[in-house]
Amino acid sequence: MQRTLTNQVIGKIGQEVRLAGWVVTTRDHGKIKFFDLKDRSGIVQVVTASNIHLSQQDVVEVTGEVKKRPAGSENKQISSGEIEIAASVVKILAKATELPFDMGGPELNLELPTLLDWRALSLRHSQIAPIFKVQEAVIDEFRVSLQKKDFTEFQAPVIIPQTAEGGAEVFAVDYFGHKAFLSQSPQFYKQILVGVYERVFAVNKTLRAEPSVTTRHLTEVTTLDAEFGFIDSWEELMEMAEYLIKSIFSRVEKDCADILKLYNVTVPQIAKNIPRVKLREAQEIIFKRTGRDARNEPDLSPEDEREICRWSSDVHQSDLVFVSHYPLSKRPFYTFEDPDDPGYTLSFDLIGRGVEWLTGGQRVNNLAELEERAKGRGVDIAKSELYLQAFRFGMPPEGGFSFGSERITQGILNLANIREASLFPRDMERVDVRLKKV
Amino acid sequence: MQRTLTNQVIGKIGQEVRLAGWVVTTRDHGKIKFFDLKDRSGIVQVVTASNIHLSQQDVVEVTGEVKKRPAGSENKQISSGEIEIAASVVKILAKATELPFDMGGPELNLELPTLLDWRALSLRHSQIAPIFKVQEAVIDEFRVSLQKKDFTEFQAPVIIPQTAEGGAEVFAVDYFGHKAFLSQSPQFYKQILVGVYERVFAVNKTLRAEPSVTTRHLTEVTTLDAEFGFIDSWEELMEMAEYLIKSIFSRVEKDCADILKLYNVTVPQIAKNIPRVKLREAQEIIFKRTGRDARNEPDLSPEDEREICRWSSDVHQSDLVFVSHYPLSKRPFYTFEDPDDPGYTLSFDLIGRGVEWLTGGQRVNNLAELEERAKGRGVDIAKSELYLQAFRFGMPPEGGFSFGSERITQGILNLANIREASLFPRDMERVDVRLKKV
Repeated sequence: MQRTLTNQVIGKIGQEVRLAGWVVTTRDHGKIKFFDLKDRSGIVQVVTASNIHLSQQDVVEVTGEVKKRPAGSENKQISSGEIEIAASVVKILAKATELPFDMGGPELNLELPTLLDWRALSLRHSQIAPIFKVQEAVIDEFRVSLQKKDFTEFQAPVIIPQTAEGGAEVFAVDYFGHKAFLSQSPQFYKQILVGVYERVFAVNKTLRAEPSVTTRHLTEVTTLDAEFGFIDSWEELMEMAEYLIKSIFSRVEKDCADILKLYNVTVPQIAKNIPRVKLREAQEIIFKRTGRDARNEPDLSPEDEREICRWSSDVHQSDLVFVSHYPLSKRPFYTFEDPDDPGYTLSFDLIGRGVEWLTGGQRVNNLAELEERAKGRGVDIAKSELYLQAFRFGMPPEGGFSFGSERITQGILNLANIREASLFPRDMERVDVRLKKV
Repeated sequence: MQRTLTNQVIGKIGQEVRLAGWVVTTRDHGKIKFFDLKDRSGIVQVVTASNIHLSQQDVVEVTGEVKKRPAGSENKQISSGEIEIAASVVKILAKATELPFDMGGPELNLELPTLLDWRALSLRHSQIAPIFKVQEAVIDEFRVSLQKKDFTEFQAPVIIPQTAEGGAEVFAVDYFGHKAFLSQSPQFYKQILVGVYERVFAVNKTLRAEPSVTTRHLTEVTTLDAEFGFIDSWEELMEMAEYLIKSIFSRVEKDCADILKLYNVTVPQIAKNIPRVKLREAQEIIFKRTGRDARNEPDLSPEDEREICRWSSDVHQSDLVFVSHYPLSKRPFYTFEDPDDPGYTLSFDLIGRGVEWLTGGQRVNNLAELEERAKGRGVDIAKSELYLQAFRFGMPPEGGFSFGSERITQGILNLANIREASLFPRDMERVDVRLKKV
């Protein structure tokens, strides 16, 4: 008999079905036993008179008849709550050993380190598994939305010959006796490919040797990068980012409505458009609202990021805000300087619910200027041969941006810690297991 | 004026347009000059009376009128061949320096190392850029086809705490003073996630310290991995792989018809179904056809792979063939043994046009057996804690497979060297630049 998914049984009252999945909870009523069976589509109650011993997470196959539950015993919490399976056969496909904690309840009230120590188990919980359905939707919508705008998807390398931006915090690899590095960003490659396809995007694994343990940083993240040429204005970059983020929110609202409900959240609000302010304007606003004077700082502090979002929400009914015109010194050497505002760049961050979600900007596309800017910052650009070639052989005015998929997932679901938005989070203390144990 | 793409000009005869792109070829006829302008959508001829000096790969913006070409001067090779742009203004957005080779012809007859030394330029060539449109279609169709089958996409980590399969050829990373590794495969993670989502897939960067320089190996590849649980038979795995490869061929035929024509190829033929033979049957067939006796070998040699494909093509009109039942010793420790054929595994390779495209099989899902099999192979599985958890807490019968996106792209376009199917190929001698130069 063909397997039936649990979300397909409702219409089959009176029919014999074969189900398979995991035992989530068991209730022993003496001669008969009840258990909830979970598969990828949902959950259903099974009742059996067999004296088989079942525990949470056992993998079972059930053959039985779909029956209407006795009046008064329906469960309105689940979509199959009006029926149950009267099992004639329950077969254990794989027996689970004793669990370190109860997996049957609606919540897992455990510390995050414990959840991560038991990641292969805790991911199965009904509160945790859905997080990565949201992340899946975010990433897929990013791709689908850019395909509609004529972008070409590419695969960026992980191993790179030089540190792209001259920064620290890069992992080194022994590459056949040579020193190579792990990519912190596909920046140089996406710019090279603007020279080939004009409009490109990539979903990347980027690696950064973050030496601090915070709730906002990981050593390995999935970034969503886009870059495109022949822009007439740097504002087109923000328009494209706004189009994307709105598309992503719509997709999550549509595909993940149940999950938003489970987390008791809505997608961030954008009344009409995402407001755009220069860094100095943002600092002025923060000063006026809070009295905290950060008007001489070259960047926003985490507290500033939260405050400018509160302002945006209060005044513009937008939980997101673009902050632009960071000073030259705070942006990578390839960032375009605003000819109308010397010393400041045509760059921007998108701050969402108090945290940076995206960073982007127009790039220097003139070879001589690029070389001079690199030199001024002590970046040995001569080593990045392919990157230089792209500019030597004609590069249009262009720019782009990079999202962090974990930051967006965290932001949408209001998760306290970015580790919750990574399937297998890596930081300086953990790579699957705690490093001291290795 | 809004920019018009070159593939939109045909219907605009008599209208003024603004175009932007790269100069591909120039022809100086004294008082007037012709040049071909390329953008992401195509190519169009521009004629100008200006005395501007233009060279290949200059980035220009052209304003002018769309005109029908004089009778007899049409170019049937390009879709815009009946018209040209009579430019009133030609503005250089970025000047290209002198090219190391001519980029204006239909072919680039250069050695591969030279093409790779100038990768940022050579990728722009009309013969090379389309290769990665095929790869893009292959990867996208893999995802879309599995979404239709209820698979969940996940992001697999690059940095791993242990070498997954106990093999050599793994890159090591200094991870805050600890030793970590680069993932050679998302195998353990996709199996863990079968315990969560039943059916999963991922597009991965996988890294392998290939110590040999061949036309078939790279150190960094993009693999397409799928894994799913609750299989009733290992043959469902081959069915899913066959569904995918057929979907990919249809997509490439539909989206990349021009490119197949340019490369003078068709997608590989599959008359009806992909034939399936056991390794020993394949060796028997090869012996009968060629007299070469490899019947005691535990694997197919490259020459064997070519011959069994020739057989498949001759006898079954299929350019692909599944070879199954490799001996236990030649497959990873987690491979399921065939209870009806002891010593041999329920594993398979898909050989396409003489090269392995995919490898897969059913996995051991019983914890005790898995531990015993690992021990017998000297794999210290105890270190892979999360992987063990997945089996400790109930894992259904399951299996999966992994494609190499470069191998498929190479196979479809009949490219001589796998490096041609990687945007930025890495091997022991090159990471963008030749390593001896670093």
